[in-house]
Amino acid sequence: MLVLAKSQGVIQERLTGELAEVEARFAGELASDLSCVNELVTHVERYRGKMLRPTLVLLTAMATDPAGRLSVTDPHRVVATVFEMVHMATLVHDDILDEAEMRRRGATINHLAGNEAAVMLGDYLISHAYHLCSGLARPTVSTAIADATNTVCEGELLQLANRNNWALDEATYFEIIRRKTASLCGTCCRVAAALHEASPDAERALHDYGEKLGIAFQIVDDLLDLTGDEQAVGKTLGRDLEKGKLTLPLIRFLTEAEPAARREALALLADRGEEEGAAPTAGGGLIRDRLLATDAVETARRRAGELIDEAKAGLLTHLPDSPARSLMLEMADAVLTRRF
Amino acid sequence: MLVLAKSQGVIQERLTGELAEVEARFAGELASDLSCVNELVTHVERYRGKMLRPTLVLLTAMATDPAGRLSVTDPHRVVATVFEMVHMATLVHDDILDEAEMRRRGATINHLAGNEAAVMLGDYLISHAYHLCSGLARPTVSTAIADATNTVCEGELLQLANRNNWALDEATYFEIIRRKTASLCGTCCRVAAALHEASPDAERALHDYGEKLGIAFQIVDDLLDLTGDEQAVGKTLGRDLEKGKLTLPLIRFLTEAEPAARREALALLADRGEEEGAAPTAGGGLIRDRLLATDAVETARRRAGELIDEAKAGLLTHLPDSPARSLMLEMADAVLTRRF
Repeated sequence: MLVLAKSQGVIQERLTGELAEVEARFAGELASDLSCVNELVTHVERYRGKMLRPTLVLLTAMATDPAGRLSVTDPHRVVATVFEMVHMATLVHDDILDEAEMRRRGATINHLAGNEAAVMLGDYLISHAYHLCSGLARPTVSTAIADATNTVCEGELLQLANRNNWALDEATYFEIIRRKTASLCGTCCRVAAALHEASPDAERALHDYGEKLGIAFQIVDDLLDLTGDEQAVGKTLGRDLEKGKLTLPLIRFLTEAEPAARREALALLADRGEEEGAAPTAGGGLIRDRLLATDAVETARRRAGELIDEAKAGLLTHLPDSPARSLMLEMADAVLTRRF
Repeated sequence: MLVLAKSQGVIQERLTGELAEVEARFAGELASDLSCVNELVTHVERYRGKMLRPTLVLLTAMATDPAGRLSVTDPHRVVATVFEMVHMATLVHDDILDEAEMRRRGATINHLAGNEAAVMLGDYLISHAYHLCSGLARPTVSTAIADATNTVCEGELLQLANRNNWALDEATYFEIIRRKTASLCGTCCRVAAALHEASPDAERALHDYGEKLGIAFQIVDDLLDLTGDEQAVGKTLGRDLEKGKLTLPLIRFLTEAEPAARREALALLADRGEEEGAAPTAGGGLIRDRLLATDAVETARRRAGELIDEAKAGLLTHLPDSPARSLMLEMADAVLTRRF
């Protein structure tokens, strides 16, 4: 869970209890009669991190309860579990794409059990997510979630198609992260609001909040990959550069740099390409140093901050005041200050 | 489509038309606003083969039409497309697991665009399959299909857990193929029957028919991998041995062999392990020669034949006579005689 600055007392406690319920349902859904499957699933549970997506579902549920009792319904709990499961599946498959060896301070599934097991375990998670969701018997919810996962896959494929594309522009970068990260967060909030039959206005504002928070979250994630401390973040860093993924600071750097500096950076990036698979290369380190000497990181952080401001403004306009809304505002701020 | 011995005239023509409709819906569902996605999808369409699963759905629909008009409803068409999409996703991900380079006489997605794109494209197909299915607004159908895909993943994981397990017994082999292949075929028939509100008896018999046909299909697939002609089959062969997957003939051979022959075979298999990734090894070839000198292949083919007989007997008992039922009986026979 994201660390929140001020405690919100009762609501924070209720959220903690609901998240524990999500974990229990997660484990219950995935239980198999095959021990080899259950063993792999225990590794996935170690992947669990901030539980951002279920938190978005649960807080939105509380904030949109028409009776004002901050209540979470059973379908909300199911949907929160479904989103967490979809997210875990994307992590397991992402780690194959990134050839990552470490996540949440432990070995990734691909590193531990091979790419083959990671492919199938991710599929098992996706399948169970849809299975759990179908059990709700709310086709509009199922369709909305499948729509979001379609978009997530498109985002990943667009990112792959742009690997080693050093001319990637900001618009395409934002399109990638909107699809691969933000669409799911937006759908979390929208579906949770719809389950409480919120007004179309509130639904839209909440979708917007989730989406903007998701984009900001991904920008900060990309910054952590570049500037974070591997021990604190708990996963392999520097992977974006290694894998030829341009992120916001590098895009800005390459756009703003003097021709000579740009040529040097492109040469270093090309160099890195040849040494792919090796440990973080000298070239990667040099690019990082050049970047950190400019305002590229600060500018990216500011962009994330602006998105968070917009997300909060939407909530303030369209949702009634409540402890749940306050927690959602705090949570948006926490996206910016997180160190892991 | 499977090649059928005798033409069934009108019904065969209707099936061909319906399969063309499935292809159109398949393409329509997957169309994206991103050209990089559409380009990858065109490669998937090249994967299309016998269309066994949609054929099972469509023929079951015709055979269970309560009005006796051999009609296919729109939900049947949707479900037929969903099953084909799920199956394609498993092929794309399977080819990563098998490091296969050729399928349907063309390069596999992993060989063509890399493992990363293959992982994500498979996910895109799965996601769209559930999306299409959710649009039906029939939660029991969605749940049945997700149940089947849960089982498919378990079968794949059980198979992976038994790679290089030279002590694999027949019961576990059958459990693997029941889950990874047959469960989906059984569900095709059961769901199609349920959409026509067939009797519980007929539903059960059809599920049983699909499952047995699926097991027989997989046994024959495994035999083709061992004894087939790569040009005729159109995909990389010998992969099962290469990847340490025991199949029915080898299990029988290892169980029945004299101690000395068994020791020699195990030594050859261990050898193969060291040369993994290389072209079919001399060791693999030798094992194949030893196997072909016994009745192991013939025994496996007989097992498949028995399953097909049982599948047909179930249809004859529980379904009224119709041209659709006749085609289903022929189709069962065609599973045994196929050469690709």
